[in-house]
Amino acid sequence: MAEFLKNTGNLWVLFCLFIALACASKVEARFRHYKWDVTYQYKSPDCFKKLIISINGESPGPTIIADQGDTIVVELKNSLVTENLAVHWHGIRQIGSPWSDGTEAVTQCPILPGDTFIYKFVVDRAGTFLYHAHYGLQKEAGLYGFIIVANPPNFTEPFTYDYDQRIILNDWYHKSAYEQGTGLSSIPFGWVGEPQSLLINGRGKFNCSLPSLKTGVCNASNPECSPYVLAVIPGRTYRLRIGSLASLSSLSFEIEGHNLTVVEADGHYVEPFVVKNIYLYSGETYSVLLKANQDSSRNYWAITNVVSRKPSTPNALAILNYIPNDAQTLPPTVPPTGPLWNDTTARLAQSLAIKAHGGHIIPIPAKADRTIVLLNTQNKLNGYTKWAINNVSLTLPHTPYLIALKYNLKHAFDQTIPPDNYDSENYDIFNVAKNVNTTSSSGIYRLKFNSTVDVILQNANTMNANDSETHPWHLHGHDFWVLGFGTGKFNVSEDSKKFNLVNPITKNTVPLHNYGWTAVRFHANNPGVWLFHCHVESHFFLGMSVVFEEGIEKLGELPSTILGCGETRNHHRP
Amino acid sequence: MAEFLKNTGNLWVLFCLFIALACASKVEARFRHYKWDVTYQYKSPDCFKKLIISINGESPGPTIIADQGDTIVVELKNSLVTENLAVHWHGIRQIGSPWSDGTEAVTQCPILPGDTFIYKFVVDRAGTFLYHAHYGLQKEAGLYGFIIVANPPNFTEPFTYDYDQRIILNDWYHKSAYEQGTGLSSIPFGWVGEPQSLLINGRGKFNCSLPSLKTGVCNASNPECSPYVLAVIPGRTYRLRIGSLASLSSLSFEIEGHNLTVVEADGHYVEPFVVKNIYLYSGETYSVLLKANQDSSRNYWAITNVVSRKPSTPNALAILNYIPNDAQTLPPTVPPTGPLWNDTTARLAQSLAIKAHGGHIIPIPAKADRTIVLLNTQNKLNGYTKWAINNVSLTLPHTPYLIALKYNLKHAFDQTIPPDNYDSENYDIFNVAKNVNTTSSSGIYRLKFNSTVDVILQNANTMNANDSETHPWHLHGHDFWVLGFGTGKFNVSEDSKKFNLVNPITKNTVPLHNYGWTAVRFHANNPGVWLFHCHVESHFFLGMSVVFEEGIEKLGELPSTILGCGETRNHHRP
Repeated sequence: MAEFLKNTGNLWVLFCLFIALACASKVEARFRHYKWDVTYQYKSPDCFKKLIISINGESPGPTIIADQGDTIVVELKNSLVTENLAVHWHGIRQIGSPWSDGTEAVTQCPILPGDTFIYKFVVDRAGTFLYHAHYGLQKEAGLYGFIIVANPPNFTEPFTYDYDQRIILNDWYHKSAYEQGTGLSSIPFGWVGEPQSLLINGRGKFNCSLPSLKTGVCNASNPECSPYVLAVIPGRTYRLRIGSLASLSSLSFEIEGHNLTVVEADGHYVEPFVVKNIYLYSGETYSVLLKANQDSSRNYWAITNVVSRKPSTPNALAILNYIPNDAQTLPPTVPPTGPLWNDTTARLAQSLAIKAHGGHIIPIPAKADRTIVLLNTQNKLNGYTKWAINNVSLTLPHTPYLIALKYNLKHAFDQTIPPDNYDSENYDIFNVAKNVNTTSSSGIYRLKFNSTVDVILQNANTMNANDSETHPWHLHGHDFWVLGFGTGKFNVSEDSKKFNLVNPITKNTVPLHNYGWTAVRFHANNPGVWLFHCHVESHFFLGMSVVFEEGIEKLGELPSTILGCGETRNHHRP
Repeated sequence: MAEFLKNTGNLWVLFCLFIALACASKVEARFRHYKWDVTYQYKSPDCFKKLIISINGESPGPTIIADQGDTIVVELKNSLVTENLAVHWHGIRQIGSPWSDGTEAVTQCPILPGDTFIYKFVVDRAGTFLYHAHYGLQKEAGLYGFIIVANPPNFTEPFTYDYDQRIILNDWYHKSAYEQGTGLSSIPFGWVGEPQSLLINGRGKFNCSLPSLKTGVCNASNPECSPYVLAVIPGRTYRLRIGSLASLSSLSFEIEGHNLTVVEADGHYVEPFVVKNIYLYSGETYSVLLKANQDSSRNYWAITNVVSRKPSTPNALAILNYIPNDAQTLPPTVPPTGPLWNDTTARLAQSLAIKAHGGHIIPIPAKADRTIVLLNTQNKLNGYTKWAINNVSLTLPHTPYLIALKYNLKHAFDQTIPPDNYDSENYDIFNVAKNVNTTSSSGIYRLKFNSTVDVILQNANTMNANDSETHPWHLHGHDFWVLGFGTGKFNVSEDSKKFNLVNPITKNTVPLHNYGWTAVRFHANNPGVWLFHCHVESHFFLGMSVVFEEGIEKLGELPSTILGCGETRNHHRP
């Protein structure tokens, strides 16, 4: 018996050693492999059946869950029959892997039907990120999802919670991406209008009783469009990671009767502040803490609603389900209606409230080496409707910039460098421009490597009187410090004095409020070619983007898998 | 004055010489350049507004009109945003230019968005031909048109006429090619059903008063869907070149009160015969002579209707307008209803009636070097619905055959050669197969160069009891002699004795009638890789095709423009 114990004791030691080794290896950086097959599928996310682009049959696609430092490997098979693909990893800086940024025409050629493209990148920072198609209007067709990166186990976050949950928001059109794209590219301009639905975790509720609907197209009892249920245990604290990948809409999210404490923004810790509702602009992510501290005998509504555009899209509803109540029992109350769509003050206030957490401030360079002012305007170009920056509407090149720059293919894109400013003295941002015509170009901004760059985004009136739209600006390859927001025209001497250089939040997406300005600063220290663009999909489609290049000479050989289009097609025989 | 006359006389001689040279050069082979821009457009061919693929904004696309021996150069710009393209020149044998056949995955890589691909080929025979997209289901999306090749001026056709007119027939779906393709590739199988409309020269008439239609989608008074008007001068004779590019439907075409004399089939002269209506299978062309010899005080109906499938698509109507009657005045009669859809006897009779014109018989080799029997079946493959030939459903390879064969990329497609026959003794063609499961392969038939090949197409029951579908079979790269048609199972010893070796018509497309057989013979003398397939677009999509290779070793270097996909992508850097 003693012998047996001794033997089992030895076995036990071996077992523990094995477990310890296994656990040790578990916290080290590792490869996480995903195999994704992209196909068209019929789905009914808001009860209305339509064709969507799915990953492994799903939309939203699978969540990538990883630890900080892991290498993500996504084998993306394009099983669309005639259509190409590219997928962007939104918020991942792609340090050392700019060819994996997934931006068609910028960092890679499109992925052909039947091809499998391998995206490989390190998730070097913990936080809440997104992914989505970055080609044509394919994001809007349903290809989007979450990337969640966890801290190392020895890391202590500046807040605590019991459970971690995810909520991805979207707006949803019934027309296809093709129909929308054709309208945008037509004379007269064909505008798809406001979305038919909002989706919370891929679920919305279109009104299937409308008489104009064909039989079989809309089924209110389809389980695919049953409301999302967030089940909570009374008394516990939930970290809700919320992201928006709306095509058009600025959104608000709230949970009836519960406050939300904002603790993370775009993967950076926020000095906590409490809100009733949180505003999200397309491309933004937040973590909020939710305490399940209300009357646990009932359920509550969670809602998202459109702000900043006069909404004609119904609010989306989800259910906060206090366990052990039945998850399907609707709350006894009328759902909240959300904040007023035109309350710009409240939205600006939230923007201003977001500061870096005191213990997690990333030191900001005291001043910029270069300041680029970018005027946002809606324009006409040969009769077509466009969006432009400093009167240049971006035309994407046929050979991706990264490839053209690396191989010095100078005729692949316009070598004219776009302007660092606009005629700020004379331009009236509060009225329709006297001359709404713009130019177009594929020219890019070349940034000095390791320099510090300020960008002042300046909003203006659209081509309609008394109208200025909200633009969520997203920078690829970097986070930026958010220096400040303001209304009206940016005043260099006055407004730059008020920049927050103490505890600015770092983000990758930031709103430019209507008739306002937004100032950001970033360190041009990531060799590659990076889009900086409005995240409203149709605005980007119509040219609302600039391109930054930095340190291209520091890049080694490009992976051959990103080649194969434009000037890199058919150069050689096998 | 005399001097002047002498001088002007000299000038006159010079002028005449110049004109003579100009006229002489006019009849010599020349290059005909076309610049086509392919875009999505909203069109209402049958009054119902939908997105279509257009050439230079039109569908059907522009007619290519050339003289025998001309070289056609089509610069095809793909301006679709995310979608690739390939265009096939249907009936053009592509002698010496197999890389211009336009069959994606067979003779070329797809054309990427933004790319311009140059198709260049000689139209070596006069006659009536077609073109259409040959990738995914893009033909059905609207990319199709005519190719008309004229004889040399010194050539006398075996019939005379005053005017030459064209009528292209099509069936039309309101669902997109994407929706249809997704259904075809799904479990359970999603079948789009019968077409909503038939189109005569791109014009049909959907019932816009259906209550299920949304406002603005269907407009019965849209000029795009006004009926096609064929204006005729009383007493004159018209050559009507009629072609069908229906996705699914077998069609009949007739003109109220007028006989039609069939004189040409797929570019070959027919021993003339008179019909009340002419049957057309997708991919076929005919010329018929129409004499405007009826009561010229009124107009007449032209109609096309569905045959061989129980139709639920309304007949399409056009107007035969006797000049000077008003073109818009509808005929005073009820339109003819066309032949019965299930009159197989009449359709078989037409097939049997088509013989080569006595003065234009192309001598046929007395016997074949090889006979390939191809059983046509509908099947299941891992739960998916397929069509198969000798129990092999064709899977197109990722690297086009032409490229793979030329560069000896053996793993690019299945090296197993598909069978030359099926178990004809035991297979019951009149009933649903006991085992409907099939296999799939990308294997091809390798033909001995310059050999003569017989193909016996054998029809059978589908997976539904008492159902056998009509399949129009189209051969790329060749014309074939039509040896015969029959009902039931082909009997080698009996039926082959009845082959028409005297005056068989040569064609590129031929129907396989329900529960019947069709026998063709061709000369494998055109180096290249050639599809032979059912021209029902969904059947081809589901694998109803074989591939023939012959004389690949005789081909010189392939144009680099066809490369760039599969194993020929990204091999080299610029």
